[in-house]
Amino acid sequence: MPVEALALPSDYIADHADEFLADLSAFVAQPSISAQALGLNECAQLLAGFMTRIGIDARVLSNPAGAPVVYGEWRTDARAPTVLIYGHYDVQPPEPLDAWHSPPFEPSVRDGRLYGRGAGDNKGQLIAHLLALRSLQQLGRVPKINLKFLFEGEEEVSSRSLPGFVKDHRDLLKADLVYIADGPMSAQGPLVSFGGRGLLYIELVAQGATRDGHSGHWSGVLPSPAWELVQLLATLRRPDGRCTIEGFYDNVEPPTDLEREQLAVLPFDEAGFCKEWGLERTALPAGVLPYERLFQPSVNICGLTSGYGGEGSKTIIPARAVAKLDLRLVPNQHPERIWELVQAHVSRHAPQIKVRRFAATPPSKTRLDLPVSEAVVRAVTRAQGRAPLIYPLTGGTSPRHVFTDILGVPAITVPYANHDQQQHAPNENLRIADFLKGIQVSAEVFAELSKVGR
Amino acid sequence: MPVEALALPSDYIADHADEFLADLSAFVAQPSISAQALGLNECAQLLAGFMTRIGIDARVLSNPAGAPVVYGEWRTDARAPTVLIYGHYDVQPPEPLDAWHSPPFEPSVRDGRLYGRGAGDNKGQLIAHLLALRSLQQLGRVPKINLKFLFEGEEEVSSRSLPGFVKDHRDLLKADLVYIADGPMSAQGPLVSFGGRGLLYIELVAQGATRDGHSGHWSGVLPSPAWELVQLLATLRRPDGRCTIEGFYDNVEPPTDLEREQLAVLPFDEAGFCKEWGLERTALPAGVLPYERLFQPSVNICGLTSGYGGEGSKTIIPARAVAKLDLRLVPNQHPERIWELVQAHVSRHAPQIKVRRFAATPPSKTRLDLPVSEAVVRAVTRAQGRAPLIYPLTGGTSPRHVFTDILGVPAITVPYANHDQQQHAPNENLRIADFLKGIQVSAEVFAELSKVGR
Repeated sequence: MPVEALALPSDYIADHADEFLADLSAFVAQPSISAQALGLNECAQLLAGFMTRIGIDARVLSNPAGAPVVYGEWRTDARAPTVLIYGHYDVQPPEPLDAWHSPPFEPSVRDGRLYGRGAGDNKGQLIAHLLALRSLQQLGRVPKINLKFLFEGEEEVSSRSLPGFVKDHRDLLKADLVYIADGPMSAQGPLVSFGGRGLLYIELVAQGATRDGHSGHWSGVLPSPAWELVQLLATLRRPDGRCTIEGFYDNVEPPTDLEREQLAVLPFDEAGFCKEWGLERTALPAGVLPYERLFQPSVNICGLTSGYGGEGSKTIIPARAVAKLDLRLVPNQHPERIWELVQAHVSRHAPQIKVRRFAATPPSKTRLDLPVSEAVVRAVTRAQGRAPLIYPLTGGTSPRHVFTDILGVPAITVPYANHDQQQHAPNENLRIADFLKGIQVSAEVFAELSKVGR
Repeated sequence: MPVEALALPSDYIADHADEFLADLSAFVAQPSISAQALGLNECAQLLAGFMTRIGIDARVLSNPAGAPVVYGEWRTDARAPTVLIYGHYDVQPPEPLDAWHSPPFEPSVRDGRLYGRGAGDNKGQLIAHLLALRSLQQLGRVPKINLKFLFEGEEEVSSRSLPGFVKDHRDLLKADLVYIADGPMSAQGPLVSFGGRGLLYIELVAQGATRDGHSGHWSGVLPSPAWELVQLLATLRRPDGRCTIEGFYDNVEPPTDLEREQLAVLPFDEAGFCKEWGLERTALPAGVLPYERLFQPSVNICGLTSGYGGEGSKTIIPARAVAKLDLRLVPNQHPERIWELVQAHVSRHAPQIKVRRFAATPPSKTRLDLPVSEAVVRAVTRAQGRAPLIYPLTGGTSPRHVFTDILGVPAITVPYANHDQQQHAPNENLRIADFLKGIQVSAEVFAELSKVGR
């Protein structure tokens, strides 16, 4: 059987590589640091202009709650499937500047990589979709598919206004699939991610007297918030890791058979992992596959702070003790419900301890056996020349729940960047070969999705 | 019944007050900061010279393990009782200097107080004994008593060489009582202290990977030292405060009936205490007297440190978690034995957690009903014109176990300094009236002890 030709042949890509790189460089050269509210409007205008030149009906939407949103549409046929492409044009702050080998906003090509803040996260991956569309236009091969583009400017500050924006633009954003290219590939190669765990971040604060007391004079008379905190924490988790908050596991949805099959084949080099982290063994219970636990919620201590932490000894009863915890949530667990359970648990066991809530991100999962899911995996396999790793869930949080929960649309993430892209760190870079391959992946995804019946 | 005259009449004291103050000022003017090894030899020589002028057989003993020790003897009659007077000529560092209203080593009299580093802790109290002896000589009233003087130069750095020195000079230091004037009186007035709790200070260190890990990616795979530490700590203490280390209470000696009587009458203003510390209520269990718990050992958390303690959230599995604890020990509990029990407990519950030991001070107690004890209380009552508070134990640690345990001699502490002497702080001071009263107390103690049969 003859191998079907790719939507964007490799010689076309090679012939246009310099042009693609120049487009990306112009985009990277425009600072757009959301944490510092720096260059966001300029970058949004630059991006919208670029999209307009490709023929996309693009505009910068004002977003009273935050950074402007760049929205665009490319319509071919009302009966064709619609894909909403999500990305972000904002970047992390570049500090520390003296750790960069070339200035973060002066893109520089070395050793087959483009260096610059945002090269991989997310400008190179975002523009790959646009360059794929332009290339398909030039070759006269645009498939029957409708594309919508949603590029936000606040991903690096927790996508704080995205849920509200999507709620307010439900009709505008209607689609059959949300497609995202973001994050690094695995060191083992390409991957496709169908979801992420949720997160509830809490802080427990135990307060005793207004100041530390002499432990010789006042132990037993002054309250000990450190002990109160330790005793509360001990009621939250069994030594084997199972959370002991009543009702915590009530709605946990186990992986499907198909997901379990995929979890079982994900590679995990235990010896290499232990060496990398300086461990004799992992904390995995016997018989548990490393990726199975992504379908298990967890309760983790991120920080403990009380009293004296310096060298030697100081004999005090600390006036205050604080714990920071993250609870990782799996499909069908909802942060609002878990937050209620946490509050009930604390008020039952230690009503004097205050509990405060920070981030709350719901989990998100898209089924592996949807026609759009299978189409994306087929496209990646064809463009990359090999089957990607399939992650039914990944460990980190992402705003995908906004699409799966608020919009009610499947959401699939396919990272295009090299695994060593130095995301968020100095010397962020995008391997040029991976960038060009990403353009081919986007084109192939458009082509495959165009064949999926609505 | 006519009131017996004091050994040193008040008019004699008033007539010589300026002379006493001048002697103390010369002593305070000589810096002697043990933490900085500053002026110790000079101060020891100054002190020995002063003693020699009173007729005491005084010398500076070299102490290869630390600061020189000033030793002296005043003998009257081989058959008379011998009192070993302990004090320290070293002082705390004076920093922060700009908080002092007059320079710390330029003694200054204001508002009826002598200001200067060491005025109360311990130079003014130490010299009170010597001035009492000189005054008794001048009046021709020296009672039949033998005095030994042991003035160390390392009290402010934990008396680190004192135990070894006392072990090496057991015969030289033989006595019927060790008498100490140190610390502040109570805000309610004079007190006599017959002992102090012991202390074992430990650190628990749980180490996981060589660095913090991303909690989304690796919870359940990387070990969590913070949870391991919390779970170990939870095995150490019941919520009601009782320590759950096996064997911890084995040797605890309860207070005698006489001690219990004294504990019951020690004043404790619960409402005032709560106001001062910003509390709604103390941690005292119902029915427990505030001073009773000084006869109960305690396990206290002085510090907890792991992972992130800043504002907001950071999603990590901390690589390390550390707890610092002090265990306060009561009569008949020995730090060496408790240290063995702690190690056994940790190795049974969490063998991966390392336990390290810092300070270890045994408890010390002198019986209230010894003839020397009754004589001291009688003397203080007469000199002060009212009955002192009797503390069978106090909460802080002191080197008294060196005398009661190594030397096998009762040890009694009678503070002469005002309760607001600003010990260890800027603007340390000694109320002149309390200083003069201290000279009378020392003289009265010598007189009363001379009447105690050997």
